[in-house]
Amino acid sequence: MDETVRTGLDGVVADETRLSAIDGDLGELTIGGFSLDELAGNATFEETLFVLYEDRLPTADELADFRDELAGYRSLAPATRTVVEAAAEGGQSAMDAARMGIASASLARPAADDGASGANGETASEEPERDALVAVSQLPTIVATYWRAREGAEPIEPRSDLSHAGNYLYMLTGEEPTDSEVRGLETYLNAVVDHGFNASTFTGRAIASTESDVLSAVTGAVGALKGPLHGGAPGPVLDMLDETHAADDVRAILEAKLDAGERLMGFGHRVYTVRDPRAAVLSEAAEAFYRADDGGDEDFYESAVETETVARDLLSDRRPDLDLETNVEFYTAIVLRGVGIPQPLFSATFAVARVGGWTAHALEQLADNRIVRPRSKYVGEYGRTWTSIDER
Amino acid sequence: MDETVRTGLDGVVADETRLSAIDGDLGELTIGGFSLDELAGNATFEETLFVLYEDRLPTADELADFRDELAGYRSLAPATRTVVEAAAEGGQSAMDAARMGIASASLARPAADDGASGANGETASEEPERDALVAVSQLPTIVATYWRAREGAEPIEPRSDLSHAGNYLYMLTGEEPTDSEVRGLETYLNAVVDHGFNASTFTGRAIASTESDVLSAVTGAVGALKGPLHGGAPGPVLDMLDETHAADDVRAILEAKLDAGERLMGFGHRVYTVRDPRAAVLSEAAEAFYRADDGGDEDFYESAVETETVARDLLSDRRPDLDLETNVEFYTAIVLRGVGIPQPLFSATFAVARVGGWTAHALEQLADNRIVRPRSKYVGEYGRTWTSIDER
Repeated sequence: MDETVRTGLDGVVADETRLSAIDGDLGELTIGGFSLDELAGNATFEETLFVLYEDRLPTADELADFRDELAGYRSLAPATRTVVEAAAEGGQSAMDAARMGIASASLARPAADDGASGANGETASEEPERDALVAVSQLPTIVATYWRAREGAEPIEPRSDLSHAGNYLYMLTGEEPTDSEVRGLETYLNAVVDHGFNASTFTGRAIASTESDVLSAVTGAVGALKGPLHGGAPGPVLDMLDETHAADDVRAILEAKLDAGERLMGFGHRVYTVRDPRAAVLSEAAEAFYRADDGGDEDFYESAVETETVARDLLSDRRPDLDLETNVEFYTAIVLRGVGIPQPLFSATFAVARVGGWTAHALEQLADNRIVRPRSKYVGEYGRTWTSIDER
Repeated sequence: MDETVRTGLDGVVADETRLSAIDGDLGELTIGGFSLDELAGNATFEETLFVLYEDRLPTADELADFRDELAGYRSLAPATRTVVEAAAEGGQSAMDAARMGIASASLARPAADDGASGANGETASEEPERDALVAVSQLPTIVATYWRAREGAEPIEPRSDLSHAGNYLYMLTGEEPTDSEVRGLETYLNAVVDHGFNASTFTGRAIASTESDVLSAVTGAVGALKGPLHGGAPGPVLDMLDETHAADDVRAILEAKLDAGERLMGFGHRVYTVRDPRAAVLSEAAEAFYRADDGGDEDFYESAVETETVARDLLSDRRPDLDLETNVEFYTAIVLRGVGIPQPLFSATFAVARVGGWTAHALEQLADNRIVRPRSKYVGEYGRTWTSIDER
């Protein structure tokens, strides 16, 4: 038996999936059979979800039904609202609120007729496919409810006539978003919806592998995504872009950061050796959005583009050993800021996207399952003897 | 690179740990350097926790301080109570309530002075060691609050003068448990506190590996433990024992079950080829408890022992190919029933024990961390082309 310790499961192929494929050397990401640039800018988020769940594009009728069903789970149970608002009032982060809210989202699904529950705690009303939609549909409402409470405002009831992305933006402000804002957000949601067995996705699969329910899997995945090592944290990029936008001399600002030993945020990725394909897609989406008549603040965009150019110039001078391509967080920050997502919600908005992948992976795991139970290497003591408390 | 698909991570050594070692062939379980039978019947649960966290037994002063600190986190935040009671009123299981409650337990820890949170959602007031105690301390109150609401009763405030195990039993009924009841429960909690990289523990480590917080790790672990494949579900055993206890002819009942193709619950374990050491410890604990003056219902115990004898006799007749040892769930059912845990709380009481292991593993992971990120093998399509909705 191979006793090699595979810390971080580095290089271990943990399972098969038909959901996404990453080719780090070629810089290619395939999602549900589509290359990312084929999918991201064309699909509504509902279409992307359908592709992940059903492995094909929906017909017009199927899409209408799917949208309706998904939209039907948007409203929070009263207790979910209570706990999410308590998170906001208690100064907790949006990701903490997302964990609390989604953990209780089973309160929003129809109960079993007899209220029965199984011996090991499985609620009789659990249905994996429906729970997937409940998770996807509840999360934006949870995040928006948190944001409203944090701003001292009443939550805005979801509207079922709006698209998934459109309704999310609407619930943040009470104003209907423009077409370009919706399209910008959808392209972002599509671009980061799935990415192989990243830590949060694998966590969700491990939970589902015990034949637990999909909401429990998503709850665990939210917890994993919260960690700063997960990546995909575009908040600090926006802080940097706000700083350069407010400044006269972008180069001076960035040089000062590098001189002080700070990292410039938004460059480099562990998985891709060439340009992250998500960065390419979001770069185009950003340009299209900020150039559109109903798009964003062009001044900010020009400043961000200048920051990128100068930063890459400085980095290639100072770190020629590294290939520090502009990464997905950089363009994410530009896009999310533009479409109207407040910076404290960036990570939670990543969750709003990635929950599509989490739920699809949980369903895939359940469909052909083996419990995830690795071995461990014991490095502790053996044979300690008990001593009573007065002899210690 | 090894492209073998390691489904379920079967046989993969995922990391090192000093917390527990399983020798399935010898039937030995080591926890924190102690063999299980050295630890389980001697230690209070607080002492076992201290051993896991500190890798040694506490002095009397250290134990007193540790008990006080732990007891200080017993009270739920109001929103946690709300969500747990909503779970009970909505007919959800104790494990669903546990997931919701522990997800929101960060509301019970002291907030950061400035209410600040980090860019990726890490709340500034997070402290891994304290969060571990918050998780361990909140979980019994969550489960008891759920139970009281399910019974239509007001929750019983925790008492800090009682031990961890004693207070849990007290909060279920409002009556102080006997010494034998507390001892019986403590032996159970110690016996199942940790068991290598089982699915829930590994899930918690994967979450912590992103440098997420300990409460997020525990929340994910609760979700994994909820799954029926996780094992450790003694509820169905008690159903069987209640059935044989009420019957005149134990053998006839069990034969009828086997004739109908049913499994007899409480026999066999995937990891151990010989007797599960936890079963041995709990078997002794059960006998000591039911024989004690302040112990349990001896009639029930005699019936359970007879059921075991007859069941093993029948199984060795009918399935001589299998070595169906009486397993940990069998004695767990006997012990938990005796000390006063209602059957619907059996899985959640397993969580009340295992949270000791989960938190210790999360701290161990954080102390020497590498993000858990395995690879996957893509088995889907490539190169699909987008078609607009009216062409599908």
